[in-house]
Amino acid sequence: MSFVTALECSRCPATFSPESPHRLCSKCQSPLLVRYALDRVAAIPVRERLAKRPPTLWRYRELLPVVAPEKIVSLGEGMTPLLKLRIRRKEGAVSELWLKEESGNPTGSFKARGLSVAVTMAASFGLRRLCVPSAGNAGGALAAYAARGGLESYIFIPKDAPEANIVECRLAGTYVEAVDGSIADASRVMAQRGAGRDWFDVSTLMEPYRIEGKKTLGYEIAEQLGWRLPDVILYPTGGGTGLIGMWKAFQEMESMGWVGKRLPKMVAVQSEGCAPIVEAFDRGSRHASPWSDPRTLAAGIRVPRPLGDFLILRALRQSGGTAVAVSEESIEDAIVEVAEKEGLLMCPEGAACWAAFRELLQTGWIQPDAVVVLFNTAAGHK
Amino acid sequence: MSFVTALECSRCPATFSPESPHRLCSKCQSPLLVRYALDRVAAIPVRERLAKRPPTLWRYRELLPVVAPEKIVSLGEGMTPLLKLRIRRKEGAVSELWLKEESGNPTGSFKARGLSVAVTMAASFGLRRLCVPSAGNAGGALAAYAARGGLESYIFIPKDAPEANIVECRLAGTYVEAVDGSIADASRVMAQRGAGRDWFDVSTLMEPYRIEGKKTLGYEIAEQLGWRLPDVILYPTGGGTGLIGMWKAFQEMESMGWVGKRLPKMVAVQSEGCAPIVEAFDRGSRHASPWSDPRTLAAGIRVPRPLGDFLILRALRQSGGTAVAVSEESIEDAIVEVAEKEGLLMCPEGAACWAAFRELLQTGWIQPDAVVVLFNTAAGHK
Repeated sequence: MSFVTALECSRCPATFSPESPHRLCSKCQSPLLVRYALDRVAAIPVRERLAKRPPTLWRYRELLPVVAPEKIVSLGEGMTPLLKLRIRRKEGAVSELWLKEESGNPTGSFKARGLSVAVTMAASFGLRRLCVPSAGNAGGALAAYAARGGLESYIFIPKDAPEANIVECRLAGTYVEAVDGSIADASRVMAQRGAGRDWFDVSTLMEPYRIEGKKTLGYEIAEQLGWRLPDVILYPTGGGTGLIGMWKAFQEMESMGWVGKRLPKMVAVQSEGCAPIVEAFDRGSRHASPWSDPRTLAAGIRVPRPLGDFLILRALRQSGGTAVAVSEESIEDAIVEVAEKEGLLMCPEGAACWAAFRELLQTGWIQPDAVVVLFNTAAGHK
Repeated sequence: MSFVTALECSRCPATFSPESPHRLCSKCQSPLLVRYALDRVAAIPVRERLAKRPPTLWRYRELLPVVAPEKIVSLGEGMTPLLKLRIRRKEGAVSELWLKEESGNPTGSFKARGLSVAVTMAASFGLRRLCVPSAGNAGGALAAYAARGGLESYIFIPKDAPEANIVECRLAGTYVEAVDGSIADASRVMAQRGAGRDWFDVSTLMEPYRIEGKKTLGYEIAEQLGWRLPDVILYPTGGGTGLIGMWKAFQEMESMGWVGKRLPKMVAVQSEGCAPIVEAFDRGSRHASPWSDPRTLAAGIRVPRPLGDFLILRALRQSGGTAVAVSEESIEDAIVEVAEKEGLLMCPEGAACWAAFRELLQTGWIQPDAVVVLFNTAAGHK
């Protein structure tokens, strides 16, 4: 039984039926958000039932778009470890430092979450051909879930993306095209190739369901901390679906009375080589300006013009958070430091989070008594 | 509270105290097995309590060597997905085909299980320096768990092991030496370098706790299938700890009345390029002869002389199982086939399992009404 009530535009008052596939708001071209009858969900003892469900993101099924359970396209995504880190003691200290370790997801990255839900919904609507431009891991995840669900996929990826991403797409038998430039260029090429074809675009925020998969990060953190929320969450921000999704999850949980009124401060972490959100946050703007010549080792956050810029910036401001750009050098240093001290092989995006944490601790923005959650979004091997 | 009663030699009647560190049996140089007061565990409603515990292998704590929970060296290992595969329909059929997908473990491989438990126990005994020869993934896992636990590690790895394994060891700040030849050569070099030093060897079966970590594979499969056991389990077999461990787990579960009397048939899968267990099984021998010039793409099963050969062969025979060597070509074909049809990027060892499954289905050794479990032991990216 579904608790979904409507698809709601994130900017204008338009709403749409969840019974058919949608992309952006047809009135103002903004992303759509899935709304639920939260009062009805709140009346069910969902939290008590969770313990008996398998450790995947589908355990939060009352808060996900529902299809028949046997139609779910799953590779076992979600319910990744929340690990307590200890290195903080040497760095000054916070009272609790946690790492949401996403590398154990299928295809080795957090992208599995959004694409499991998006592919499931696309398949349930009878769509057969999905496409995406990807900085790397999203392409690999789409290729895998499309293959698992028996759908075709068409993936456009920057030529200099990590080789592992291109190989995993090719192996899954998908159409994959390596494009000169960044994800924005990949997106342009995809638009050309797909013109007149029945490809359904599952890009970040271009359809409403990837964000629903990503929001489970917020539910998992809350469940894993015993329905207590952290004070600060640092998130490596490219397209920002995870940040937007977690903020949505925290608001849903507050509305259902699952958590208290004090929600976490959300922090967007970017690289100095591609920091459109940081720049917009600092100048108090509602929108980000496109970043020219984006360069960073952290391919996943090399997103010069995120479609959900205003949603990211809104979440940062509503939550009392901030945005931080770290140097490329500090990313490289962080990879070595975390591997040596914690045995964790971070991806560059995760290492950026660690570097930002150190910076915010030094400036005093993060208080010593804070409970902090960092993210490692993908396997360091990739 | 610990339910461990003794360390028992796997060959002679000797027993040893679990209160101090041990390596092989001091009388006959065979591996030691951890024994529990299973009657006392059986009197507790452990299975009913499992649902409320976090999804790591430490959920089976009554059946693991106990240390204080805060001393456990964990990166969130275990409770990996058991995925239902569908490709079987095109290949003839079995009634259920499952894949135990181990790539989501910390460090991207099933080696995390044994090393989480072995490093936890070593640390609890006050050992500070651990060493291991590794075909690849075990080295990466030891490096990570040692770093996480604040211990030193010394790792010896064949020069032609996957580069990802060597890099992950170096990043964790461990001592890593790349050696000409196979894991047997790495082992010889380690013996030279370690002579006169206080290194504790956590090689496969050289201490009793890695097998305890690996046996949780058996508990998880049973829990995930609702305490029903599969008919056949195919396992890519190098050192064979997982196969020996699962067989131990099934016997423990039978003894506690958690499952019925009919245990799974265990199948050891090897490559034609290194098949000492298959050769010994076929000629009815209790021991394997060392395989000369071992060659296979599947580095994890390139083990020319497994220490636990007689334990592997015993498990195959007691269970009514068998041993199969597959061609290198069939391994490569299987990687592509499974990626295309299921969206799963298998490691070569996992692909070997798939190839062996097809072969045993064709020869009729696996019946169409069987419930079968295959293994993917590590991330294909590595």
